Parts: sequence; C-alpha cells; structure tokens
Amino acid sequence: MKNSIQIREVGLRDGLQLSKTKLSSEIKIKWCSLQSKAGFKEIEVASFVPPSILPQFSDASKMVCETNKINNLIPSVLVPNLKGALIALKKNSKKINFVLSASEMHNQSNVNSTIEKSLSMFNDFVTERNTRGLKNKVQISAAVATSFGCSIQGKVEKKTVIKICEKLLEMGADELNIADTVGYANPYQVKEIFKSLYKISGHIPLAAHFHDTRGMGLANVISAIDEGVQRFDASLGGLGGCPYAPGASGNIATEDCVYMIESMGYNTGIDLKKLLKLRKSLKEWMKKDVLYGNLLTSGFAKTFNI
Amino acid sequence: MKNSIQIREVGLRDGLQLSKTKLSSEIKIKWCSLQSKAGFKEIEVASFVPPSILPQFSDASKMVCETNKINNLIPSVLVPNLKGALIALKKNSKKINFVLSASEMHNQSNVNSTIEKSLSMFNDFVTERNTRGLKNKVQISAAVATSFGCSIQGKVEKKTVIKICEKLLEMGADELNIADTVGYANPYQVKEIFKSLYKISGHIPLAAHFHDTRGMGLANVISAIDEGVQRFDASLGGLGGCPYAPGASGNIATEDCVYMIESMGYNTGIDLKKLLKLRKSLKEWMKKDVLYGNLLTSGFAKTFNI
Repeated sequence: MKNSIQIREVGLRDGLQLSKTKLSSEIKIKWCSLQSKAGFKEIEVASFVPPSILPQFSDASKMVCETNKINNLIPSVLVPNLKGALIALKKNSKKINFVLSASEMHNQSNVNSTIEKSLSMFNDFVTERNTRGLKNKVQISAAVATSFGCSIQGKVEKKTVIKICEKLLEMGADELNIADTVGYANPYQVKEIFKSLYKISGHIPLAAHFHDTRGMGLANVISAIDEGVQRFDASLGGLGGCPYAPGASGNIATEDCVYMIESMGYNTGIDLKKLLKLRKSLKEWMKKDVLYGNLLTSGFAKTFNI
Repeated sequence: MKNSIQIREVGLRDGLQLSKTKLSSEIKIKWCSLQSKAGFKEIEVASFVPPSILPQFSDASKMVCETNKINNLIPSVLVPNLKGALIALKKNSKKINFVLSASEMHNQSNVNSTIEKSLSMFNDFVTERNTRGLKNKVQISAAVATSFGCSIQGKVEKKTVIKICEKLLEMGADELNIADTVGYANPYQVKEIFKSLYKISGHIPLAAHFHDTRGMGLANVISAIDEGVQRFDASLGGLGGCPYAPGASGNIATEDCVYMIESMGYNTGIDLKKLLKLRKSLKEWMKKDVLYGNLLTSGFAKTFNI
C-alpha cells in the first residue's frame, strides 16, 4: 500500500479571485462535479466575503448547497472573519477555512483586522461551532497567510508564525494550512517552518498552500513532503495570480502537482486522464485568462504508470 | 562563507537547438559576454556537429575562438562523437562535453552509435587528449543523456546509468553530467541516482542537467542539492524544448534556478539584476520563440537580499 497524499483544489476560490472571466454557478458546479469524479475529496468552492468586495463569490451559498450534494466530496469555503464564518456555518458548510495572516500589515490589508482580533474571532467561532454541537460535523481549518513573507511588510519571522499556530491549535483548529500567499517561500524555509510546526502540532494535520509566483512551487512541495506534509492546495491550470505582481503566475498547478507526486510513488487517488480532460474544458471556459501547468502540453512520460 | 553552487548556461546550445530564431554569431558572442559579466564562469557555446544536421552551430569554431577571449570564462562545447571531439580539441576548446545516452535506442537515434561504441570513442578521446599533453588544459565532461528515462525506449534502469558512469570514470572523465534529456525525472528518482553515483564518483564532480518539460525541473534541483550536487545546467528563459513533446518547455530557466538557489542562502556568484537585463534582451533577440521562467514577471521578493 502506497502512502497517500491529498491534493485539494482551490482554483474555484483562489483561482477565480483575480480572473478576468466570471464563471456562472452552473459552470462552477459542473467543474466541481467533474473534479470530484476525477478523485478529488476536497474542493474549496467559494469565499464568504461581501459581494461588494468580491462579486464572483456572490453565489457562495448556492455553491455550498449544490456541491454538498456531490458524493464523497467535502466542499470547503474560505472565510475572513467571524461574520463570514457564521454565515458559512448557517449555510451548512462541511469545512470552513478561516484565514488570517502572519503579517500584521497583510492581515490589516486583507481582512481589515489586527492579528489579535482575528485570533479572537477564530476562538469565538470554534466555541460557537462546538456550542451548536457541530464539532464532529463541521471542520475548521486555520489558514495562515503570508507565513513565508509578505509583499507589504517584507520579512515574517518564523517565531511569529509558530506563535500564531500555537494559539490556533490551543483554540481548537482541526487543521493548520500554512500559506505562501505571495510566492516568497523557498524550499529551505519550508523545511524549517514545518520542522518547527510538527513539534507542536500533535495529531492535528498540517497542510501547505504554495504559489508558483517565482517558479519554486513544486520544489516547495517536495520540501514539505520531506518534512511529512500530506495535504496540499493547488489550482487547476495554475489559475490565479498575485495582486502584488501583475502578470505573475498563481497557485501551483493541480495537474503538475498530482503528476509529480504520483511519479514519486505516492497515491493521490486522482485519475490524471480525467483531470486533464477537465483542464481542457477549463481553458474553454476561461478563454480570457492565462493558464499555466506543463502537463497538458507535455503529456505523460512513457515511464509513467496510469 | 556561504556554500557555492555553480550554474552553467546551456541556452546557446541546448536552447538554440530547437529555436525558431537563428541568432547571428555576433549576437551569440554578445550574449556570452553579458552573461559572463553577470558572473557566469561556464557557458556552453556551441555543438560540434555537422552543419547539415544542425546549421545553427555552423559557427562553432568562431564561437569557441571568440568566447575564449572572454576573461574568467570557460566556454564549453558539446560533441556527439570522436570526430567532433577532435575538431573541438583542434579549435582550442577549454572544456568538451562528450554526450552519449544511457538509453541504447536514444543513443542510436541521437548520435547514431551503440553505447559500447560511444564509450569506446570516449576512451579514445581521453587518450588522445592526454597523449597531446592537454590533460590539465582541456577538461572532458561526460554527459549521460536520458539517464532518467527515454521517450523512445521508455524506462532506463538505474543500474545501466551507474554501469556507464563507472566506465566513464575509469576512462578518465573530469566530470559526469547526468541529464534528464526528455523531462522524465522526478525528485525521488534524482535522489536515488545521485546517492548511488556519489558512492563511485570519488573526487570527480557530478553535475545535473534537468528539463522542465513536466514542471519538475526545480524540484529535481532541490533533490540533487540535498544529495550534494553543486553544478547545474540551465537555459536562460528556459529556452529550448523537447523534440518528443512539441510545444513543451525546455531546460530549467537559468534566472529562476539562480533565484531559488540564492534564496536558500547559497552563493552562485551571479548578479541577478544583470542577468534579468540580459533576459530582456534575449526576448528582443528571439521574438519568434516562447520563453519561460517566472522571475522576470514576478520580480524579486521584498525579502530577497541583493
């Protein structure tokens, strides 16, 4: 039995956040359905933020309702604060990713709150979920953005990330998702941060969310795997970008990430042929957007077992 | 003092092999000069193959002669057989990269010879160089193509690569350059092969030559560094491609590779600002060709010390 590594699709959330195309709910639901059929167990389907800020997620409630109907899929949602988190809870989200930044300046700019206030909201949210008797029904993941550096503040100290993570663990996070929001991470930094985090995380799983802004995305995945990480976010076609680096690439491309991991002998449970078929459809749906990822062009190696 | 890692430019050889643009000798010499000024100590400037096969290298002798005049630079050349090697020697090449494939079928297709015959030519060449008293003046590197798999033959056994390398070492290679010619390598495979090679290589340095065909190029670099490799080939703008995967990307992009390695605290001796300026010129020179690499678009991270 091969070791398993889980890839979660975030293209519908992180990917669409900066896209030129606004996909209809119907297309997005179809996307989720096809990706689930390709073997994905978790897909981030929306963000509960005010539609005035990100109108592409104005159908968040519908997305949760419809994707909850897909068998064997956990549709997750991103929330930036307590208000969004409580709406997500009310809308029957199965997994809620609460985002805050390790950079004080980025947290202010991204979720309009101090880190302290974000942590306090996270705590209130966990308490609220537990009080409602939903502890075993709704997972709460804490996504720690800009954990490897910040394009506003610059350096983010490792000890700051660890301190925030310690608090999130104490407060009852079901998962920590360590995010390189602006593509600053390098493989050694990844190694260092996860090495330290595994000393405090106990049985709580760690996930990694890398961007390929400077080409190091998959190299960072390798470093994280070496330290024991088994959960990775990725975006089909590397959809997305970086608001601080116009034209730069976005998240690591799901198809390339799955291919690399499967090549190394891990089991992702994903059918790459089905995934590449969906990747082709995505290109049709998003003609105005630049997509990344090498696998669609290169094809599988002759030595790759599928 | 930081540990050093050497990046060698192969864009003028591997990159131009499949390019749509035919650069003039003048532009190529300018390219070498500017890249040398950016801190590169070794650049592969041409291939000694019959001009009827690769007309873009018909100026190989001129390239060697002119780039030999650049201070602190070792201009290397690729040769596919004894004939080319002897011409390169005659033309005063300082470093000669003798290529053969670990895949029997690829060797036949690429250099029109059996592996046994290629090895025999390599042996004759080393003997010839030594007989002429050039042992300390002309370096001979052995480039083992398709070491991680072959798009014609499929799997290439690790033991085959090791066996070929053992012979090349016995025959007096000054360096072994292990090449993933068709972009089949994955990071675990890289680890395994270099782990085995370091057991037999003694004081002879090992180099790695990766393609980014399936997006794993820089991840493979990380794996190789972990095993001790300190010499990497790369191509500016990822110039090049793969004859077996039309439209696919080529070598790892020099600028992204240097950036990653410098980010991790190694010293490459390269001035990235100068390199990116040259990268912009390359785009002007090669308008018909697709260039890769993320750094030019994304820029340096705020945390990157330059």
